[in-house]
Amino acid sequence: MNIGVLGAGQLGRMLALAGYPLGNRFTFLDTTGKPSAGIGEVIIDPDNQHLAEFLANVDVVTYEFEHLPVTLVREIEKHKPVYPGSRAIEVCQNRVEEKALFDRLNIPTPAYRVVQSAEQLEAAARELGCPVVAKSVTEGYDGKSQTVLKAPEQAREAWASINHTQLIVEAFVDFVREVSMIAVRGRDGEVKFYPMAENQHVDGILRYSIAPLPDLAAAVQQTADNYIRALLDELDYVGVLALELFQTRDGKLLANEMAPRVHNSGHWTMNGAVTSQFENHLRAVQGLPLGETQAIAPTCMVNVIGREPQSAEVLQLENAHLHRYDKSERAGRKLAHINLVAKNHAELLKKVQTCAALLPDAPAPVFHFVP
Amino acid sequence: MNIGVLGAGQLGRMLALAGYPLGNRFTFLDTTGKPSAGIGEVIIDPDNQHLAEFLANVDVVTYEFEHLPVTLVREIEKHKPVYPGSRAIEVCQNRVEEKALFDRLNIPTPAYRVVQSAEQLEAAARELGCPVVAKSVTEGYDGKSQTVLKAPEQAREAWASINHTQLIVEAFVDFVREVSMIAVRGRDGEVKFYPMAENQHVDGILRYSIAPLPDLAAAVQQTADNYIRALLDELDYVGVLALELFQTRDGKLLANEMAPRVHNSGHWTMNGAVTSQFENHLRAVQGLPLGETQAIAPTCMVNVIGREPQSAEVLQLENAHLHRYDKSERAGRKLAHINLVAKNHAELLKKVQTCAALLPDAPAPVFHFVP
Repeated sequence: MNIGVLGAGQLGRMLALAGYPLGNRFTFLDTTGKPSAGIGEVIIDPDNQHLAEFLANVDVVTYEFEHLPVTLVREIEKHKPVYPGSRAIEVCQNRVEEKALFDRLNIPTPAYRVVQSAEQLEAAARELGCPVVAKSVTEGYDGKSQTVLKAPEQAREAWASINHTQLIVEAFVDFVREVSMIAVRGRDGEVKFYPMAENQHVDGILRYSIAPLPDLAAAVQQTADNYIRALLDELDYVGVLALELFQTRDGKLLANEMAPRVHNSGHWTMNGAVTSQFENHLRAVQGLPLGETQAIAPTCMVNVIGREPQSAEVLQLENAHLHRYDKSERAGRKLAHINLVAKNHAELLKKVQTCAALLPDAPAPVFHFVP
Repeated sequence: MNIGVLGAGQLGRMLALAGYPLGNRFTFLDTTGKPSAGIGEVIIDPDNQHLAEFLANVDVVTYEFEHLPVTLVREIEKHKPVYPGSRAIEVCQNRVEEKALFDRLNIPTPAYRVVQSAEQLEAAARELGCPVVAKSVTEGYDGKSQTVLKAPEQAREAWASINHTQLIVEAFVDFVREVSMIAVRGRDGEVKFYPMAENQHVDGILRYSIAPLPDLAAAVQQTADNYIRALLDELDYVGVLALELFQTRDGKLLANEMAPRVHNSGHWTMNGAVTSQFENHLRAVQGLPLGETQAIAPTCMVNVIGREPQSAEVLQLENAHLHRYDKSERAGRKLAHINLVAKNHAELLKKVQTCAALLPDAPAPVFHFVP
């Protein structure tokens, strides 16, 4: 089966690496003119001239990036199956629709307001109580279209800096940690859940994900499973869905946002789970049975951002798995990740510290749980 | 680093899949005109016209097939590092040199004779006692150039059927099982050993490999480690080496043959060991630290020969990992393998039975150990 992938970055690359063993071939449609997947056939198509060629090549279409024109995805759906479908893209690329869906499914979120002017932003900030986070409704990706207001008086400046016609303003949550759920749903509706990961972001960029969590009550995992299952079923979703949440001091979960694709906070599954998120996404989109999602051992994903470490130093670490994306160095760019696997969480934390010291400019890893 | 691979079959394909995450790129030189690797750049060169182009592309050269002209490998060595070196190829593609090396390093082998005529073959068969195995000295691969003599009188027929100028005749060994050692040696001389696997061949083709072995005395593994280390050190070897052995009733090991490359009986390491043989081979040839070789869990590699099963049926098995080679079906052809991982050997054997039933024409799995 030839899998068409919209987008040709590292997520597409890792999909291909997981799919070749299943006998798949890959054709990427890159609209940016800067593909980095490095394997498979890449059709570079910044002006939408090669869609027919792409469609002729592929049996089923998926994507590694959800900020695509919905019209394009709908057009593709007329010719080939697209998983996850355009409805998932539509919801996930629009924070207002996303929040409305969370509300409708009784998935708690931080308190929020939708605003359409600097004045409304200032009023919302006052009402919710600062600090608040203001986010553009569309095109947000990895924290590049959001800002924190420490006081309502910053509204005008924030409004100008984000420069969108509509913003979502969210109350700041006094969370103890950021977590995420990765789940996968097959064409037949079967759902499998990965154990929840704890994530550490710095400046809006994911730096560390660790799973499974030694201090996670089974009931909390169950609640997260229920939330993401509700989303998957409601969207008649096929493939991997990621849901980022905040966990509060009393253990409660608040949904932050979701991504209709394989997700950076699920990269630990490549070495830490029985079946990786990439393989499970591909199994789902081509109607194959889903693979088991349980963890093999405590695992930490360490992102390599902006500058690469010496491979030889990283590979000297025991049970360390390097995943480079074959990209050139640039500040803030995701270049690679390292999966560290250990017998127990105490050993894992030590290993993460050692690894972080090998990475140029890596922030100190800080996790909520105590091993 | 761009890795040049001589040969473009499934072993090259799996090297590439292991090397992309290390940031490698791959250029294959295919002299057969029928490459099947399916990924990376393939230079099809049946007439040796494109060697300069290949060499210009690559930083280091390795191979997935040792029956290469030694003159070609020596020529390449003048321009780029080749790992393992031409001396390893020379020894491994010639059974007389291989046996001589085993003898020199005090690695026991079945009793053998070198013969150069049908008459000498008959005499050797009489002397060693039938049955004996007659093998061509060169170009042997997967049992295609060997035959069993049940009586000395079959010498003339056997000589004609193998049709080589020189044969090795080996006494039949009353072995209880076939086993193999996979080890890797770095550029700096560091050596790591995988746990020994038990292999089941049918008609000269590997069908099942299982590792680690629950009934293997530590002393036997240690002996095998010593044997393969002696070979690696003697050849100043860099990369993965495979050594096939017979284990006799009293636990003794007799070397059968070796292969200077990643090996089918090491495919279980892709899902059953901390670092796969493919990644370790690539780490070695580019001078990176070697990864750990210990097993994660009992694992069985099941070869898919000639005809493919339904992927959906295979993937329904718990902790089953499918590795297809994207080749068309043909009798006797290696098309894929399935790695089955289990909590213990009893569960593993059940799973192997279930899996074998899904494969067209698969022989019944029979292992020596009792779980």
